[in-house]
Amino acid sequence: MPLVALDWGTSSLRGALIAEEGRVLEGRTFARGILTVDKSGFAAVFESCFGDWMQPGGLCLIAGMAGSQQGWLEAPYCPCPAGFADIAGHLAWVTFNGPGRIAIVPGLSSDKDGVPDVMRGEETQVFGALELLALQHARLVLPGTHSKWVTVSDRRVTGFSTWMTGEFYALLRQHSILARTLPSGDTPHNDAAFEQGVACALRGAGLLHTAFSTRTLSLFKRMATEVLPSYLSGLVIGEEIKCQQLQRGDSVVLVGADSLTTKYEHALSQLGVATRCVGQQAAWHGLYKIADTLHAP
Amino acid sequence: MPLVALDWGTSSLRGALIAEEGRVLEGRTFARGILTVDKSGFAAVFESCFGDWMQPGGLCLIAGMAGSQQGWLEAPYCPCPAGFADIAGHLAWVTFNGPGRIAIVPGLSSDKDGVPDVMRGEETQVFGALELLALQHARLVLPGTHSKWVTVSDRRVTGFSTWMTGEFYALLRQHSILARTLPSGDTPHNDAAFEQGVACALRGAGLLHTAFSTRTLSLFKRMATEVLPSYLSGLVIGEEIKCQQLQRGDSVVLVGADSLTTKYEHALSQLGVATRCVGQQAAWHGLYKIADTLHAP
Repeated sequence: MPLVALDWGTSSLRGALIAEEGRVLEGRTFARGILTVDKSGFAAVFESCFGDWMQPGGLCLIAGMAGSQQGWLEAPYCPCPAGFADIAGHLAWVTFNGPGRIAIVPGLSSDKDGVPDVMRGEETQVFGALELLALQHARLVLPGTHSKWVTVSDRRVTGFSTWMTGEFYALLRQHSILARTLPSGDTPHNDAAFEQGVACALRGAGLLHTAFSTRTLSLFKRMATEVLPSYLSGLVIGEEIKCQQLQRGDSVVLVGADSLTTKYEHALSQLGVATRCVGQQAAWHGLYKIADTLHAP
Repeated sequence: MPLVALDWGTSSLRGALIAEEGRVLEGRTFARGILTVDKSGFAAVFESCFGDWMQPGGLCLIAGMAGSQQGWLEAPYCPCPAGFADIAGHLAWVTFNGPGRIAIVPGLSSDKDGVPDVMRGEETQVFGALELLALQHARLVLPGTHSKWVTVSDRRVTGFSTWMTGEFYALLRQHSILARTLPSGDTPHNDAAFEQGVACALRGAGLLHTAFSTRTLSLFKRMATEVLPSYLSGLVIGEEIKCQQLQRGDSVVLVGADSLTTKYEHALSQLGVATRCVGQQAAWHGLYKIADTLHAP
């Protein structure tokens, strides 16, 4: 019987119907992130979006913010170091008035110098990606509004950190003094300006300073207005990458949508870092492997 | 005859009536920064705010954004390295239908690795502070929405850089995901939380990452909600300071209002950096010294 696999995040809800060997039969995406759902409304949203996929005896596994305090049912974080068996062994089972069973995958927590960090959903993508690429050790990045950098050793997540890169970009783009200089609408991505932004960040003194160059380069007419957003994107992604203390020749696994991983690939290549990419398949494969442990004798 | 000295910035307009030896007779502040004034309206705002101070044969000197393209009259930047004589020798004289004469002090520009930087108003404070403290060489910081770090050698500004620290704080405080965690209203400054934020920034991996700890410390109930704004303030100011590559035992001159310089003093002391402070007097003294050069034979 196919697995109903969901990635239920803050701003979107994606699902896939997955057959044997992880083959995706069908996919759906809805703008029903948990921020749009009342605490008591999760079952109804699930029913309307994926009810037709659920069969008696069927299984649905959910990764992401649906397992947070603001979600459907809180699935407490597994502390790092944590392996695949830790998350697969701590599913939170939803009480659900319908056919089949529904469980939520827990996120991970870490602690460094007394400062906690958390992820929800990315852990499933990480274990899926490791499996797909047959890796035991890896450095991974999952770019996004809040990017995650993850270190895996012997197939266990030994540490990770969150980077508010996508959100800083949006804040600077929309709400800062730079918004007055930047074009108001969308502009096509410009590789050269992006690369210049990354280079500035990599040699630069820090984003608090380099961000201002978006304004002065425009003020002195050294950069065309329509490529400034790409330059700013290069500045913030370059800053994130600069802080990872990577060496030339290191290798990084990029997990996520092409639109973002392409930019990170480009920026990492400027540092001489090798990359491999895994797309949305990582989440579905991670959930499929968890389902597999439940059917094992 | 007293000098009419103005600091006409982006968001506020301040003025002082200055007698011999730089003595301030009277001060006024208005919420009439250049953003509130039409291109053709500067003379009228000046007249209504300070017209009664101007005498036949009198002099008004203006520092700040009033000399920008969006201001009263553009006073082209003096490129660095630049000394006091460079700005005093390049005043932009306003054509003004009233008693006395009015001139605007030029700002400074710098160029590093092909990336320009600019200041308007701070140059006058810098030269005023150097004079008040009788310094030939100094590292100065003028904290604010856009902080300026300035290096002075032989009384000449040899380089400077802009740091969007105050603006990043406001963006994170008001528009980011952290705004949901932070208290909505003003809270009193908390020294311990501020210090913890500075310490986190100083050892930290970078603001894109450390900013997120504002959320997780609250999520794990390791910090009280009402002190989170002070912690975040420590994170951004600590980041700015970390990027200056200061050594224990270095000395920095802080120029600005007490409310801000006090925080920077506190943060710099955590690095073992010595500080001296100069307040609003720096701008008035800088303008007074420029007026002095006009009366010299």
